[in-house]
Amino acid sequence: METIQDYDIAVIGGGPAGLAAGVYASRGGLKTVLFEKALIGGQITTTADVENYPGFEETLSGFDITDKMKKQAEKFGTEIIQENIRSLKFEKLNNTVETASAKYKVKAIILATGANPSKLGIEGEEKYTGRGVSYCATCDGALYRGKTVAVVGGGDSAVEEAIFLTKFAKKVYIIHRRDKLRAVKLTQERALGNEKIEVVWDSVVKAIKGTEYVEKLEIYNKKTQKTSELSVDGIFIYVGIIPNNELVNSQIKLDEQGFIITNASMHTNIPGIYAAGDVVQKILRQVVTAAADGAIAAFSAEKWLEENKDKQS
Amino acid sequence: METIQDYDIAVIGGGPAGLAAGVYASRGGLKTVLFEKALIGGQITTTADVENYPGFEETLSGFDITDKMKKQAEKFGTEIIQENIRSLKFEKLNNTVETASAKYKVKAIILATGANPSKLGIEGEEKYTGRGVSYCATCDGALYRGKTVAVVGGGDSAVEEAIFLTKFAKKVYIIHRRDKLRAVKLTQERALGNEKIEVVWDSVVKAIKGTEYVEKLEIYNKKTQKTSELSVDGIFIYVGIIPNNELVNSQIKLDEQGFIITNASMHTNIPGIYAAGDVVQKILRQVVTAAADGAIAAFSAEKWLEENKDKQS
Repeated sequence: METIQDYDIAVIGGGPAGLAAGVYASRGGLKTVLFEKALIGGQITTTADVENYPGFEETLSGFDITDKMKKQAEKFGTEIIQENIRSLKFEKLNNTVETASAKYKVKAIILATGANPSKLGIEGEEKYTGRGVSYCATCDGALYRGKTVAVVGGGDSAVEEAIFLTKFAKKVYIIHRRDKLRAVKLTQERALGNEKIEVVWDSVVKAIKGTEYVEKLEIYNKKTQKTSELSVDGIFIYVGIIPNNELVNSQIKLDEQGFIITNASMHTNIPGIYAAGDVVQKILRQVVTAAADGAIAAFSAEKWLEENKDKQS
Repeated sequence: METIQDYDIAVIGGGPAGLAAGVYASRGGLKTVLFEKALIGGQITTTADVENYPGFEETLSGFDITDKMKKQAEKFGTEIIQENIRSLKFEKLNNTVETASAKYKVKAIILATGANPSKLGIEGEEKYTGRGVSYCATCDGALYRGKTVAVVGGGDSAVEEAIFLTKFAKKVYIIHRRDKLRAVKLTQERALGNEKIEVVWDSVVKAIKGTEYVEKLEIYNKKTQKTSELSVDGIFIYVGIIPNNELVNSQIKLDEQGFIITNASMHTNIPGIYAAGDVVQKILRQVVTAAADGAIAAFSAEKWLEENKDKQS
């Protein structure tokens, strides 16, 4: 009961990179299909206030911005399919995308599968996920009204989300393994000037404990070498991201952290296979850089298809 | 009567790249000044309908999009100065920006000076500029209501603007030196399917003639090797762009066409000097790629300033 459908381009992933690729590819006259296994919008949909996407001088949510991109891509003809991909098979101008219900033959592919939050890998982390352990303050922050929470990490996301959490929580600890935050200055200043925020310096979380829900953290101070307990109702973990490279692991050239390596045209090492957004090895992971990647990948793919036109069946 | 002012970052140029750099630099806590010699918004302000900047599913004008970016940059503290720059002097962490009225000492610089349209360099081009010769259909198209015009070029801009001109003109010739347009398929199809548009293939304009205003073009067909005349009321020239590199010509590494060469961090060959947008050597010149460049340049400059903090006076 398998159907086979033909497209010029398959975009894998429906975050800003994939949606921008959809806008450019379909507006460029290519028959374009975009696959997203979960919610359209990607990681950014969990961010309540995006204030630095150039052009939106009034702060919008990540969901709103990507919803606009989705409508724009569909306006130009991108077909969006919300289904999990079983496998990708790369064969020049004749690639196969397989889902549970169908096979798609596509001339070129843009990989925009994004990235996901890193885990701490400590005792209690998995057990209490959804019961006090969270990777998304925007999603779960409102559950902690009047409560005490901890944020683990010292980068932009960690510190920004700590500030966000003060809207709900009565107290927010930032637990950071160094003696200095990594977030941009303005964000640091905002956090350090917020009376609800207290930074626990030079410290790592060793275990998350509780009964039904999280109740306390076991904290190890690397300078004093002492272990202590911190009572919290919730813990938000912001310690980096890992690329979603499962579909391509063995075939596409990756860097040592698993991000896809492309050239300036967003071309991978395989002819006709492009990549864009957070899954790519790059300097800065932001909505605008993901969107630019997607535009470049679609533009490059279109030129490549044009050049290889004679070889197409 | 010279004043000296100190800033962390000077952004040179107020198009999408410069404005996005302003948003990121000032939001990142850096004291940021942006210089623009003409109108804020850059080249894109001459485009009436921008329909592919990701996130604006309703078509906006280039002016409107960059006006939003300007307000956003100012919201975070970017100071915008509309003045011509006399000179830039690069000295690590102590660069000088000189205008007619003041000197600015800046720790880092982001060059976002953009690019300008190429000229044909033919008889009558300069003489009739503003009197029938134009490089901006959006600016001047409405002057040709019910008239006959020609567009020179075969790329995206040329063909898109030819389509735009059919809103006003009764007849639009596209004069292209090849037997095939370079524009993306959808644009080509729209143009070739438009009954007001006629393509003059394999041809170049040798001279622009008239009395007070443009009256006719001398056209040379490269295949038939014959010269003919074409009566038109206006000619719109879209044959490429040249980078605005005058301020940096002898110091910054450029490619053979004069575009600034940067690494992936948008760093030029000079420490603390970054570049972004159309003036940079790159694959795709679009608002979204310019904005991404600006964001990356500001992010990189901030990290560089942080790393060089001890050396700062």
